[in-house]
Formats: sequence, C-alpha cells, structure tokens
Amino acid sequence: MTDFAATRAQFHLPDGVIYLDGNSLGPLPIAAERRVAKMLREEWGEQLIRGWNTAGWMVQPRRIGDRIGRLIGAEQGAVTMGDTLSIKVYQALASALELNPSRKVVLSDSGNFPSDLYIAQGLLASLGRGLTLKVVEPEEVEAAIDGSVAVLMLTEVDYRTGRLHDMRALTGRAHAAGALTVWDLAHSAGALPVDVAGAGADFAVGCTYKYLNGGPGAPAFIYVAPRHHETARPALSGWLGHEAPFAFDLDYRAGRGIERMRVGTPPVMALTALDAALDVWDIASIEDVRAKSIALCDLFIREVEERCPDLALASPRDGQQRGSQVSFRHGQGYAIMQALIARGVIGDFRAPDAIRFGFTPLYIGEEEVLGAARILAEIVGGRLWDRPEYHRKALVT
Amino acid sequence: MTDFAATRAQFHLPDGVIYLDGNSLGPLPIAAERRVAKMLREEWGEQLIRGWNTAGWMVQPRRIGDRIGRLIGAEQGAVTMGDTLSIKVYQALASALELNPSRKVVLSDSGNFPSDLYIAQGLLASLGRGLTLKVVEPEEVEAAIDGSVAVLMLTEVDYRTGRLHDMRALTGRAHAAGALTVWDLAHSAGALPVDVAGAGADFAVGCTYKYLNGGPGAPAFIYVAPRHHETARPALSGWLGHEAPFAFDLDYRAGRGIERMRVGTPPVMALTALDAALDVWDIASIEDVRAKSIALCDLFIREVEERCPDLALASPRDGQQRGSQVSFRHGQGYAIMQALIARGVIGDFRAPDAIRFGFTPLYIGEEEVLGAARILAEIVGGRLWDRPEYHRKALVT
Repeated sequence: MTDFAATRAQFHLPDGVIYLDGNSLGPLPIAAERRVAKMLREEWGEQLIRGWNTAGWMVQPRRIGDRIGRLIGAEQGAVTMGDTLSIKVYQALASALELNPSRKVVLSDSGNFPSDLYIAQGLLASLGRGLTLKVVEPEEVEAAIDGSVAVLMLTEVDYRTGRLHDMRALTGRAHAAGALTVWDLAHSAGALPVDVAGAGADFAVGCTYKYLNGGPGAPAFIYVAPRHHETARPALSGWLGHEAPFAFDLDYRAGRGIERMRVGTPPVMALTALDAALDVWDIASIEDVRAKSIALCDLFIREVEERCPDLALASPRDGQQRGSQVSFRHGQGYAIMQALIARGVIGDFRAPDAIRFGFTPLYIGEEEVLGAARILAEIVGGRLWDRPEYHRKALVT
Repeated sequence: MTDFAATRAQFHLPDGVIYLDGNSLGPLPIAAERRVAKMLREEWGEQLIRGWNTAGWMVQPRRIGDRIGRLIGAEQGAVTMGDTLSIKVYQALASALELNPSRKVVLSDSGNFPSDLYIAQGLLASLGRGLTLKVVEPEEVEAAIDGSVAVLMLTEVDYRTGRLHDMRALTGRAHAAGALTVWDLAHSAGALPVDVAGAGADFAVGCTYKYLNGGPGAPAFIYVAPRHHETARPALSGWLGHEAPFAFDLDYRAGRGIERMRVGTPPVMALTALDAALDVWDIASIEDVRAKSIALCDLFIREVEERCPDLALASPRDGQQRGSQVSFRHGQGYAIMQALIARGVIGDFRAPDAIRFGFTPLYIGEEEVLGAARILAEIVGGRLWDRPEYHRKALVT
C-alpha cells in the first residue's frame, strides 16, 4: 500500500493553502530544486557542450519517456519527450492521417481540450484534400464512428467535467471501423491507470505539468504503438528525429522507432525537473492513487452537496466514470473561485460556469477535502463572492 | 565601449578550460542559477497556478521576445518565444508558403542547417500540391532566385564555415522576384548586428542556446514582419495563439499580431534562465561584440596558419564575410578535436572534416585565442591525435 504521508513529503506546499489545482499545475517536488541546481552548475556549468554525452542529455527524452510509459501501459521504447502537447497532437494526428489515406474525417468531441481541436483545424486547413473535422457531443462519439473516419482523436478525461471515455471500447470500435486513434492523456497520466498497449491505442500524447508535476510548461510526451514505428512519417521532421543527426546529411531519413518523433534540441532543464518529479512513482502505485482519488472526490461531492444546494454537480457521480477532478456549475462560478482563492482554497474556473477541483492523493488528503468543502459552503451560503474584486477577469483563469 | 571584463564576470567558466564552443552551447550565466532557484521556490512553489498571472509567466514569451527583438533589429511586439528552432522554421515556412500561394518552389542552400531542410522536406511532403525544395550551393543562391520561388529560406551564417549571407541584398532580390523570405538567425543573434526590419525580412527564427546563452534546449524565437501580422496563418494553431485562449471556444481564431505564433504552454523555467542570460546585453553592445569577435577570429586564423600548415581554413578570411566562428578542415578533424578537448580546448567537429571554434567576446579574450592556437599546433604538429580513444565516435559530436 502506498504511504501517502511519504509521497506528500516529497512536495513543497505553501502554508495556508489547500491546493486543488494539481490537475492544472502540480506543485513543486522538493527534489526538483536540488536536481535543477545540480544540472545548472555541475552539468551545464562544468561540462558545457560535453554534457550532451557525459550528463546523458541526449538520451533523456527516451529514458524519461520510458518512465512515463510505465504509468500509461506503454511498451518499452514507445514513448519519447519533447515540445508541447499541442505540437505532439499535431505530430500524432498528421502521422495517423497519412496511415489512413483513403479516409477524410477526423472525429472528435466537444469535450476535447480546445487546443487539440485548434491544432486539427490548422492541420486540416494546411492539408486541404477535403479533410474535415467532425466534432460531436461526448456521448455521441461511439455512434459517430463509421467508415468515413480516418482518425478518432479524443481526450480520455474531459477537462471540464472529468467525464472519462472508455479508451479500450472506443479504440476497438474505431479499429473495427477501419479508423486509427489518437488519445490525449493530459488528465489521465499520473491520475489513473492507463493501458495504451492493452487498449490498442495507435498514438497517445500528454502533458507533464498536471498530475506528473513537471512544472509550468514542462515537456510533453508522445506514444506510438510499436506496429507503427517504422511506417509513421513524422510531419515535423526535425534533426533529432533523423536516423543520424550528426551526419548532417541534406536529406531526412526517419530515425528508428519512437526516436523519429523527436524534433529539435531537447529542453534539458525542464526534463531534469520532470525526472525528479517522477521519483514519487518509485514509492506510489497508480492503482492506490486511483482508489484514494475516487474516495476523496466522492467525499467532496457528498460534503458539498449537503451544504451547497445552489451548486450543480457537473462531473459524473460514479467514480469509475470520472477522472481525478470534480466540477460544479454556478452562474457566479468565476467570482466564487476568486473568493475561494482569496481564502486559500485553490481550484480553477473553466468557462462558461464550472468551478473545478482536482484531487491528487500524492499530496491531498481528507483534511483538505473537508476544509475546502467547508470554506466553499461559507462562500456560497453567505454570497461572499459578491465583491467587485472577485469579478475582475485575470489573464489566466 | 563594452567592458568585457564585466561581461565575462557574468558567466561561470570551469577551471582549465578554453571554451570555444559557445556557438553550439553558451556557458552558464551565473545569474541564471539564482533566478531559476527563485522561480522554482518563490514562484512555482509558493504561487502555484497563480504564477501564470502573479509571476508574469503568461507574458514572458512576448516580453523576452522583445529583448531579443532589440538584438536583431525587430520592431517592438514582433518577436515571441517558444518551442524549438525546428518547430519555428516549420511555422514560418508554412505561413510564408500560404502567403505566396501561386508559387511552387522553396529555395534554400546546402549551407543551411540540415534540420531546416528536413523540416521543409517534411512540410512539403505533407502539403503535396507539387511544392518542391530546391537546394543550391550557397554562392548560387542569388542567381537561383527567380519567378518560381515562393519562399527563400536561408540561414544567415553557415554552421560549418561561418560564411555570412547578405540578408539585405538577398531579401531585396527575393522581394523583387515576388518571393518571401525566412531567415534562420541561429548563428547570428547575439553574435553580430542583425537588422530584420531594415533588411525587410518577412520571417526570422533562431535558437537561444548559442550566442544568447539560454542553456541546453532553450526555447526558440520567431519574428514576423508587422505587415504580415494579421494575414499569416499559423499552421501550428495551438491554444495560446488563439485570440482568447481562456474562452475555450471550439473554433480557432488567430490571436493579434505575433501572439498567434504561440502554440502551447510556454516553458517557464527555461524562459526564466534565458531572461537572466539576456541581462548581459544591458551592459554589452552588439557592435562592440562584433568588432572584438572579428579581431579574435583574425588573430586565431593568423596564429593557426603560422603554426599548422596542414590545416586548411574553411571560413572566409574577410571578417565582414564571416560569423563569429572559424573552421579548419583536416582529414583527422574528428580525432584532432577529441585531442583538443582532452587538453581543455573545447570546440566541436562538423562532418565530414571541419573543426570549428566559436569566439564569443562576452567571455573569450586574446589569452584564450593564443592558448588554443598553441595547443592546437602541438596536437597537429606532434600528431598527438593518433590515439585510439580520440577516434571513438561519441553520440553527440
């Protein structure tokens, strides 16, 4: 059984804060400070350019990719790191489309993170050829998978509500219809058990600043099923995906396996922080995290519903159908969240009306859940959100 | 006049090393250690998600973009940061091609960095439509600019030899022929005065880990001429390039001006280190850096040619025609460089036969130039490169 006191001790959490936004940005792993300082002084500072070989910088993307791969059920050597999630969505979708050249439709849903849809729109506008993006409601996805679909592109956990898609069932359905799949695991990796290999996913991508605690703007990951390793053409064909980057040939030749999904020079400092952040998984099991996450979310729903009849649950009530977050709707959601933050309870707001709370058992326990529910009830019950400063829109919500 | 003792004091340089590879990876700016540590503990650690507003993370890309913009002659608000150079090449080239839809040819040269050519090959393979990449020798570029060329895509300074293209003349020639330009400033920014606005460049891109000392894998920059701000369509259309990222609309609408060239969540830690690295430009003038760089390169050429008749100068002899590096050719170049590194003189090797030395006056002076020439002469004269360990190929050269 995972010792959650021990996992919590690995994070820096500020005094007076109940942090329920690890689904947006995980907290600082204390080890990251030391490891980044060491990377700066002992690696970059002392080894300089030699660090690419002597400090292992060049192999970081694949080594760390495998660490994440173990959390998402990937085969060894099937995950690499780099760029941002949006870029990795582009790479995965472009590759998947080329592997299914006779079809014209990318199928997604309105619960996908908007950037994934934007990236698809941009890619399809570039490609032309009559390719179209079809966006249906989440519950209509299964019925919409037909013989026109080239690629089914979904985010497993809805960023607004936490609603969970059945990756295995939908992937099976897509394959039966002759479509490939691109899964975005932004709200899955580190939050719940994922089995990309078992589900038969073709491509999967994700970010590492949420439940993997890599820090603001931490690098993304991409998974490519081994059966596609030698046939997927990277549309973003940068030198580090080349078979021999330091031969400096004038013609691109895709590298072996997942290496071809690398693009440019890897972000060493950010990967170093992420590597430290992943150490917590040496003492935590994702199954234990999942079980406790469901319990904490259930407790929060119960406590909030008892005290706040004005809030409407936006998340599935059944923990098995939900990621590691709970959202409620309220017309004054934005101001309520500002009032909560002013009281030290940090969640976030997602337009148009959702207040969202992430529960990450690595560093959150029952005490925080009860505290947050109590303060939320005080604010909603007492209309304490009704102050001008809580209605001022910030740049980032 | 720039005080080069003061600029040098801003960098950590290891004992016993003459570092002539700042054209590949600049050394650690001492301030970066403190600033990154502060960002980790006081910003990420204490402010958590709030840091996007309170620590200014969301506006970092444009703020730092403007700092770099001042070094390359860009208009205010015309440069932003993020991703890697290869990704920014893709963005710039894709946008430029769309702005010139009736033409079919991307013109480049064999002195372009291979990743730029690879990216172009990947993009054109995706787009189809009969688009082709034409690669000529550097000296043939001007003559090859004709009415078929959609985009002229060049790196100003040749990574192998330091040969400098005339950005203003070639851009004028391209425009006269109805072509747009994409300039890669990887070996220019921070090395020599650049005037993208004055030259009329349409797009420019660059990395920040060379002469801008941002650290291994530091983020790239992209410049878009203001006349294209509202018409350039970002092929990589991620959420942070959206007009209103936090509205979470389902449809992409390009943001205003350079903001649309942003893609995913910005790499805050890396941008923080880069921001610290740019402080040296508060006390250094790029004109002084350029003048001293030419003097140092000239001195190195003179010293090496006097002592090493076996080495053939690969760089232009005229400093005005050269970036901030000097290369020599030798059949045993790889082993010679390994022997140099073993003696503490760090340059690098570029296949097939070039040994390459970067001279960055911010932290390199005459003493290092003379020391490096002396050691190089000992190695070449005494054939001290003739040891098995110097012939073993490293992953990164």
